[in-house]
Amino acid sequence: MPDNKPVALIVGAGDFIGAAIAKRFASEGFAVCIGRRNEDKLAPLVAEIEASGGTAHAFRLDARDEDCVKDVFAAIERDIGPLEVVICNVGGNVRFPVRETTSRVFRKVWEMACFAGFLCGREAADYMVPRKKGAIFFTGATASMRGNSGYAAFASAKAGQRALAQSMARELGPQNIHVAHLVIDAGVDTHFVRERMREAGHDPDSLPPDTLMNPDSVAQAYWNLYRQSPDAWTFEMDIRPFGETW
Amino acid sequence: MPDNKPVALIVGAGDFIGAAIAKRFASEGFAVCIGRRNEDKLAPLVAEIEASGGTAHAFRLDARDEDCVKDVFAAIERDIGPLEVVICNVGGNVRFPVRETTSRVFRKVWEMACFAGFLCGREAADYMVPRKKGAIFFTGATASMRGNSGYAAFASAKAGQRALAQSMARELGPQNIHVAHLVIDAGVDTHFVRERMREAGHDPDSLPPDTLMNPDSVAQAYWNLYRQSPDAWTFEMDIRPFGETW
Amino acid sequence: MPDNKPVALIVGAGDFIGAAIAKRFASEGFAVCIGRRNEDKLAPLVAEIEASGGTAHAFRLDARDEDCVKDVFAAIERDIGPLEVVICNVGGNVRFPVRETTSRVFRKVWEMACFAGFLCGREAADYMVPRKKGAIFFTGATASMRGNSGYAAFASAKAGQRALAQSMARELGPQNIHVAHLVIDAGVDTHFVRERMREAGHDPDSLPPDTLMNPDSVAQAYWNLYRQSPDAWTFEMDIRPFGETW
Amino acid sequence: MPDNKPVALIVGAGDFIGAAIAKRFASEGFAVCIGRRNEDKLAPLVAEIEASGGTAHAFRLDARDEDCVKDVFAAIERDIGPLEVVICNVGGNVRFPVRETTSRVFRKVWEMACFAGFLCGREAADYMVPRKKGAIFFTGATASMRGNSGYAAFASAKAGQRALAQSMARELGPQNIHVAHLVIDAGVDTHFVRERMREAGHDPDSLPPDTLMNPDSVAQAYWNLYRQSPDAWTFEMDIRPFGETW
Repeated sequence: MPDNKPVALIVGAGDFIGAAIAKRFASEGFAVCIGRRNEDKLAPLVAEIEASGGTAHAFRLDARDEDCVKDVFAAIERDIGPLEVVICNVGGNVRFPVRETTSRVFRKVWEMACFAGFLCGREAADYMVPRKKGAIFFTGATASMRGNSGYAAFASAKAGQRALAQSMARELGPQNIHVAHLVIDAGVDTHFVRERMREAGHDPDSLPPDTLMNPDSVAQAYWNLYRQSPDAWTFEMDIRPFGETW
Repeated sequence: MPDNKPVALIVGAGDFIGAAIAKRFASEGFAVCIGRRNEDKLAPLVAEIEASGGTAHAFRLDARDEDCVKDVFAAIERDIGPLEVVICNVGGNVRFPVRETTSRVFRKVWEMACFAGFLCGREAADYMVPRKKGAIFFTGATASMRGNSGYAAFASAKAGQRALAQSMARELGPQNIHVAHLVIDAGVDTHFVRERMREAGHDPDSLPPDTLMNPDSVAQAYWNLYRQSPDAWTFEMDIRPFGETW
Repeated sequence: MPDNKPVALIVGAGDFIGAAIAKRFASEGFAVCIGRRNEDKLAPLVAEIEASGGTAHAFRLDARDEDCVKDVFAAIERDIGPLEVVICNVGGNVRFPVRETTSRVFRKVWEMACFAGFLCGREAADYMVPRKKGAIFFTGATASMRGNSGYAAFASAKAGQRALAQSMARELGPQNIHVAHLVIDAGVDTHFVRERMREAGHDPDSLPPDTLMNPDSVAQAYWNLYRQSPDAWTFEMDIRPFGETW
Repeated sequence: MPDNKPVALIVGAGDFIGAAIAKRFASEGFAVCIGRRNEDKLAPLVAEIEASGGTAHAFRLDARDEDCVKDVFAAIERDIGPLEVVICNVGGNVRFPVRETTSRVFRKVWEMACFAGFLCGREAADYMVPRKKGAIFFTGATASMRGNSGYAAFASAKAGQRALAQSMARELGPQNIHVAHLVIDAGVDTHFVRERMREAGHDPDSLPPDTLMNPDSVAQAYWNLYRQSPDAWTFEMDIRPFGETW
C-alpha cells in the first residue's frame, strides 16, 4: 500500500547521525526508510518516529551487498513510493599506521565508506533519472579531503567516495538529480565518539561547548541541501563546530 | 535612534545579488544597511524594502576606502545598532588576456574583489569579537577556486579574498564569529550578465531554464548560512544551476 | 646471487610508461625489477635493457593479489637486493556513465588503481622503514584530482590511491621514506591511447606536436623525484604537454 | 655588448633562496641577472658568481614599481640578451592577527607577494610570447595553498599570486611559455628564518637535520623545472624536508 508522502532512504541509519536525519525528514512529512545491517536495532528509532506522528520503515540493508541493495530499493519503490532522497551515511572510521593496516581492513573500510555509496548511489540514479527528479547525498569527513598520517585506509575510501559523488554530480546534475557531498570536519556527539574519548582517558562530559557537533545539526544541513532550488544547488559544503581547529 | 532589530550590512548592494540579499534579510526582520559607491542608486531598493514593511538604510560606501569604511561602520553601530551580519559582495569581474591587463586594472580589480573584503571584514571583526557574536560572509566565484585563461586579474583577486576569508574563519571561529565563503559557480541572472550575453550575440531570454542563477537563491544560501548553529558552521559551499557544466 | 646495484621495482611495467621508467632506471645503474600479470610479455623489455648493458628481472606479478605481492617482494629482497625505489604504475582507465558501471567494473578498477597501490606501497614500507631509506612513488592522473562526468569508477579509485599516497607521505616522511604522487594530466603516447583515438575516428599520427606526452618524460619526472635531497622532497607534481587545455 | 649565454632573471635575489638560484643558473652557463631594491647588497653575490667563472649582472629593481620593472627588462633585453627564464621570488612573509593587520601592511604584502609577480610575469610574457619560448616561475609557500590563522595578509597575497600563475600557465602554455609555481612548504635555512627562531627562543643550530630546507635544494627544483621537456611541463610542485609535519 503505497504511501502518499515523499520517500527518503537513510542508508546507515544505525548511528546518531543517521537517526537524526531520519527524524528530521520524518518530521518534515517524509515517509522515512531506514536501513542498517542489523535491522532489529532500528526498532526503537521506528517507534520514536511513529510516536511523534511520523512514518518510518525499517529495512535490513547491507549496503555493501549488491543484491541486498537492489532488493531494498525495489521493495521501497514497490511498497512505499518513489524515492525522493537517498542519503548515504555509512561509517567506517578506523585509524591504523599503514604498516599495521591489513588488506582485509583496507578492503572492508573501502566497501563500507566507498563501495556502499556506489551501490546505493547508482541504484538511486537508476530510479531517479527516468523521473528527472531526486536527490542523492553522501556523508563525507575530514579524511575525504586530506590523507592524514594514520588514516591510509579511511582517507583512501572517503576520498574515493568523494570523487564518486563529484563524478555523479557532474553527470546527473543536467538530468535534474541533485548530488551533494557534506564534509563533516569534526567529531559528532555520538556514543561511538564518546566511547573513543573515554578510552583515550578524556571525559566527554567535561568538553567545552561546541567542540562536538550535534547530530541534529547534520540533519539540518541535509534538510537545507534538500530544500535548495535547482538553480542554486550545492555540491559540497563543510560543517564544523566553532571551537574546532582546522 | 537605535533600532531594536538585528542589523545586517550588505556591502556592494548595487547589483541584483546584493539587492536580493538585502530584501531577504529585511523580510526576516533585520534592519538592513546597504552600501554602494553611488548612494543615489540605492533609493529604489530602500523604497521597495520599506514598502514591504521592512527597514533599510542607504549608505554611500566606497569599500576600498578605509576612512569611508570606518565611518560607515561607526555610523551604523551608533545610529542603527550592533552589526550582526556583514556580507561582502563587491564585484569586479573582468576578462583580459594577461598581456592586455594593465597594472591599473590589476590593482583596481584587487581593490574591489579582495582589499574591500579585507577592510570590511576586519572592521566587522573589530566590532564583533568583543561581543563574541556575529557573522562575516564573502561572495566568491569560480575564479576564487581556479585561475582560468583570461582571468589573471580577477582570479588573483578572488583567490586572495578566499584565502583572507579562510584565515579569518580559522582565527575568528573560536571567538564565536562565523566567517563563510559562498562560491557562486555560475552566471547569476542580473542586468550585467544579460548585457554581456547580448553583446556576445546571445539572447538571454531564450536560455534553457536553470542555466542562470536567480539572485534570490543566493540570498537563500546566505540566510541558511546565517541560521546555522555554532556547532555546525560552514566555511565554504558552492552553488550552481543544475544545467551548469563544471 | 644478490646484485650490488641499487634495486628498483616497477609495478605495472607492461605499458609504455612502465617500460620507459624501467629503461631509465636501468640506464642509471639500477637493477630493475619489472612486474606484470603476464610475465611472458616482459621478455622483450628485459632483452632491450640487457642489450643496452643494463640489468633487468621479470616477475609475474598480480599486484591485486596479496600473496603474490608478498612473494615477489620477498624474492627480490632475497635474490636481487634491498629495494631502493618502488613505483606503482598500474593502470585501469575506463569510462562509463555511472548507471552503466557494473559493480564488477567498479571493484576491478579499484583493485587495479588503488588496492594494488596499497599492497605494494605497504610491502615496500615494510622493507624500507627498518632501513630508514627508500622511495615509493605512485602514478596519478587527472582523475586523481577531479571526478569528471563518466569517470565515477576511475576517479573514485585514483582519488583513493592519491589519499593513500598522501597519508603514507605524512606517516613515512619522518622515517626518511620518500612517498610521492605524480599526476599525469594528459594522454601519454602509448599503444593504448593511440588505439582509443583510432576507435574515436582520429588519426594519432596527425596530432600536433606536444599534445601527447612522451613516456620518457614520465620517466624523467620520476628520476628527478628520486634524485631529490631529503630536505626538499616533493609529494605531488603535475605534468602535461604544453598544448594541453586544462 | 650582448652576451651569447642564455639569460635568466632572478627577481628578489636578496635572500638565500634567490642567491642559490642565481648561483645555480650561473653554474649551468646562464648569464644571470639579479634584481633587488637595494642594488648595493648584490655586489657580494655578483663577485661570488664571477669568482666561480660565471656571469652575473646586478640591477636595482623594485618589482612593485611598473616603470622600474619595464626599464630593467628593457635593459636586459638590450644589453644582455633575450630572457630565457624569469623567476619571481619576492618575499613578504608577515604574521599578524587580522585585527592587528593595518591596511598599509595588507597592501604592502600584496604588492610584494602578488603585484610584483604580476608586473614581472606580464613583462616576461611580453618578451617571450612573440619568440614562443621562455619560462616564468613563481615561488609559493604553504600560505599559497591555505589561509591559516594569523596569516590573513600573507595568505591572501600568496593565494593571489598562485591564481595569477595558474591563469598564466593556462593562457601561455599553448604559446610554448612554461609557467610554474613552486610551493615551498617549510622554512628555508636562511638568515631571516634563523633570526626568527632565535627571537622565539630556539637555537637554530641545534635543529635536527632536515627540518629546514637548504636553499640549494630550491635551486635544484627550479633547475629541474627549467629542464623539463615541453611535452611534460609541471605547473605545480611542493617541496618540504622529510622531517616536516604537514
